[in-house]
Amino acid sequence: MLIGKVVGSVVSTRKNDKLVGNKFMIIELSEKMVEKSKQIIAIDNIGAGIGEYVLVATGSAARIGCGMEMAPVDAAVVGIIDDGSRLE
Amino acid sequence: MLIGKVVGSVVSTRKNDKLVGNKFMIIELSEKMVEKSKQIIAIDNIGAGIGEYVLVATGSAARIGCGMEMAPVDAAVVGIIDDGSRLE
Amino acid sequence: MLIGKVVGSVVSTRKNDKLVGNKFMIIELSEKMVEKSKQIIAIDNIGAGIGEYVLVATGSAARIGCGMEMAPVDAAVVGIIDDGSRLE
Amino acid sequence: MLIGKVVGSVVSTRKNDKLVGNKFMIIELSEKMVEKSKQIIAIDNIGAGIGEYVLVATGSAARIGCGMEMAPVDAAVVGIIDDGSRLE
Amino acid sequence: MLIGKVVGSVVSTRKNDKLVGNKFMIIELSEKMVEKSKQIIAIDNIGAGIGEYVLVATGSAARIGCGMEMAPVDAAVVGIIDDGSRLE
Repeated sequence: MLIGKVVGSVVSTRKNDKLVGNKFMIIELSEKMVEKSKQIIAIDNIGAGIGEYVLVATGSAARIGCGMEMAPVDAAVVGIIDDGSRLE
Repeated sequence: MLIGKVVGSVVSTRKNDKLVGNKFMIIELSEKMVEKSKQIIAIDNIGAGIGEYVLVATGSAARIGCGMEMAPVDAAVVGIIDDGSRLE
Repeated sequence: MLIGKVVGSVVSTRKNDKLVGNKFMIIELSEKMVEKSKQIIAIDNIGAGIGEYVLVATGSAARIGCGMEMAPVDAAVVGIIDDGSRLE
Repeated sequence: MLIGKVVGSVVSTRKNDKLVGNKFMIIELSEKMVEKSKQIIAIDNIGAGIGEYVLVATGSAARIGCGMEMAPVDAAVVGIIDDGSRLE
Repeated sequence: MLIGKVVGSVVSTRKNDKLVGNKFMIIELSEKMVEKSKQIIAIDNIGAGIGEYVLVATGSAARIGCGMEMAPVDAAVVGIIDDGSRLE
């Protein structure tokens, strides 16, 4: 998994049916984990807010582990880090 | 998922049978998400046009989430971003 | 998917049984898609020749989409690009 | 698989139900395997301690190989390297 | 698949049960395929020796294609390249 900070969200009205009802969060991945400033878009059904540090699962883990086995999802917020600011 | 801009398409007459009928879009991935100018080829069954900003799912999510479980597809347009130009 | 140019092939006499009968093509990936000069090895059952531009699927898509579900294949040529030289 | 050194752990109280009971270790991947200082978060059910060198499996291997097929896990400690300090 | 050269092996006494009996080879990936000096750890059930050039499959292909569907394996030697030195 990777750690990142929620920095925003994107809205997509025309989308794959299986994605309806999901929030698409913009996650700024930690510079310790990726190149500088790299972002990904992850669904969130944990309820992370802007500025929170989160654990992001990628690949088939995001889809299967979040009960969305048949949806085109490749990244998901799977936890909110306690005291995440210490990671900066 | 990654965000990118549709910049063109490619045509392949001789291809895997399971790919017949698909459009192959050239997606310029957002510089916030990857190194400068990186592109991928994604199938599109949402109907994205040139210049639109799209959400792209990669890996098994593209195949399974788009109802093409048995096709050699590893990237798909799964949503069109509303007001995508704000992402530039 | 990624676009690349077939630049050669490799021969492996001692290999996994499930790979017997496959051609292993050296694909020079397009500089628009990856870092400079990056190559991968992909099986080819489309019949691409040296110098042709091809569409390459990676990951489980290569294996499942090419009817080789149980073989250790992670990249496959899945289409030949018409007028590929225009991509250079 | 990749080799890395366990450098810490993170705590996540609000998380996906299927992750409850797991430890999330911060793994500093070996510079021989990735860019400088790159880290990932991996679950550990081998019992690795801080400072130990470990073998990390990523992708679906982490989930399926560790008996957590339905959990959103994409990296796992799967072995502790004997005499790992020799790898530095 | 990627091409690399076997440069050593690692030993892990405390490991996931499903990995017992496997050899973990250190593969120096070809500079044509990855950044300079990048290595990965792959299981080998072909019998590659130090100095040999090998074909490495990654991801679910390594696990499923090598008959280790339930093991935490994400890279495997799947062939030995004939005349591999020509690739340098």
